[in-house]
Amino acid sequence: MRNFDEFTITDAVLDRVGNATEPRIREISEALVRHLHAFVREIQPTQEEWQQGIEFLTRTGHICDDKRQEFILLSDTLGVSMLVDAINHRLPEGATETTVLGPFYVQEPPERALGADISEGMKGEPLFVSGSVSGSDGKPLVNAAVDVWHSDDDGYYDVQQLDALGGLAMRARFRTDAEGGFHFWTIKPAAYPIPHDGPVGQMLAAQGRHPWRPAHVHFMIDAPGHECLVTHVFVAGDQYLDSDVVFGVKDSLIRDFVEHPAGEAPDGRMLDRPYARLHYDFGLKPKTGKASRAA
Amino acid sequence: MRNFDEFTITDAVLDRVGNATEPRIREISEALVRHLHAFVREIQPTQEEWQQGIEFLTRTGHICDDKRQEFILLSDTLGVSMLVDAINHRLPEGATETTVLGPFYVQEPPERALGADISEGMKGEPLFVSGSVSGSDGKPLVNAAVDVWHSDDDGYYDVQQLDALGGLAMRARFRTDAEGGFHFWTIKPAAYPIPHDGPVGQMLAAQGRHPWRPAHVHFMIDAPGHECLVTHVFVAGDQYLDSDVVFGVKDSLIRDFVEHPAGEAPDGRMLDRPYARLHYDFGLKPKTGKASRAA
Repeated sequence: MRNFDEFTITDAVLDRVGNATEPRIREISEALVRHLHAFVREIQPTQEEWQQGIEFLTRTGHICDDKRQEFILLSDTLGVSMLVDAINHRLPEGATETTVLGPFYVQEPPERALGADISEGMKGEPLFVSGSVSGSDGKPLVNAAVDVWHSDDDGYYDVQQLDALGGLAMRARFRTDAEGGFHFWTIKPAAYPIPHDGPVGQMLAAQGRHPWRPAHVHFMIDAPGHECLVTHVFVAGDQYLDSDVVFGVKDSLIRDFVEHPAGEAPDGRMLDRPYARLHYDFGLKPKTGKASRAA
Repeated sequence: MRNFDEFTITDAVLDRVGNATEPRIREISEALVRHLHAFVREIQPTQEEWQQGIEFLTRTGHICDDKRQEFILLSDTLGVSMLVDAINHRLPEGATETTVLGPFYVQEPPERALGADISEGMKGEPLFVSGSVSGSDGKPLVNAAVDVWHSDDDGYYDVQQLDALGGLAMRARFRTDAEGGFHFWTIKPAAYPIPHDGPVGQMLAAQGRHPWRPAHVHFMIDAPGHECLVTHVFVAGDQYLDSDVVFGVKDSLIRDFVEHPAGEAPDGRMLDRPYARLHYDFGLKPKTGKASRAA
């Protein structure tokens, strides 16, 4: 157990981490060592490049606090978050596709009545959102919890401007009605760049990439007996649909946010200016034993 | 550029990072994406395990400060530091083998005259260290800078106890004499555990590993026209030689720290108690254009 060279050290480390008594720890540790060493052996870093890597990870850790998670941004922008999402959501026919949670979800958002306006007076084009929730078999799910959240007209979330807003906005929990339906008013979201003034922004710049995400509304939908659905609905026509910095776009999640002239909206509200309308019918995957890890 | 699933996302991310204009950034980014995705695809993490990974990296970043570098400890304990060292030091016959720098080196240590006692009164068994520095061709190198540093009798470095010590100790820079020789007095170092009260310590415990390094004296030797040599000399017989937590031990770097009774030492000093003696002859690799990256 000494005299390791660039060819023998990997087996030596594998031998050492093989002491783990918990099989899953052992499995993950061994895979980490094999793939990490293969990466290093391929790129053959100089000592200076190794030092730069150490410093990049250190800066990434230092910028993380209770409002910012740079390692999640790193995972997102390297496609790892969507890969983990895909592995954990192999879906049956009729189930809505998933995408990343993102860093702006707030646990237990305020419960609002169907039809409420959650824009809290933010400027922007009014948006009427309606939809339904069913199992993947098509049967409506009553009283499902529908959490929604999205950016404002400038691309910022409420939690990025809490001091100015004085509270949450463009964010709520609704409950589906007897037909599995829901509807509410808000404002139309805008495309936005992920926070890019830190190490991940430097990485994106070095890789010749922009930091933008196409405009979208987040949904998290939970109903008994079904897997919790985490997804977005994207605005059709957005210029970043084909270059989402976190690789989250799927065709099945894009919808026209249909423009309507001023006048009476579907719920009877009278609009004195044009508004947009989004409709989406969600399908939830039935819960099974350990379906999310099924091979 | 959308609708990525667990099989197509890797090519999508590779396509994106291929925009890097700097070839080396592109090369490293592409290799990182391929190996990182292969790791994730192999272990198939649950969302909870992914979250634990994010939190591990975040805690590792948060514990780093100007006195502690947890990402270097992570690199060391996963064998990455020794792998990078091996890749960068393919050595000719006659050149001393290298090992990790470790986190306790101090730039520009105090210059001391040959024969000085650098223990600064620390308790421990006196140690007389002598040696020589030559090129790998065997010719002595005059006026080479020989930096030395090591732990005390309890396994702690001076920089870990600066408040108590009031200054540096067991650390100095010497210059080789006309025959390429050097000698000095200090105390015998002890084995020690790497800092293990943080994320890396948790990882080692989960992997069933101890955090110990065998006792050693660090050397960094620099002479014009030669690659800077970074290495240790280990104490023969140490119980951790075959399980060094950072995989740094090589047979050629182990020496007997020979025990001598009280009496006259090689430099004429009279010892009133037993002392140990270490001798090591170092060989430096001639500097070439880009030898450290040679394939």
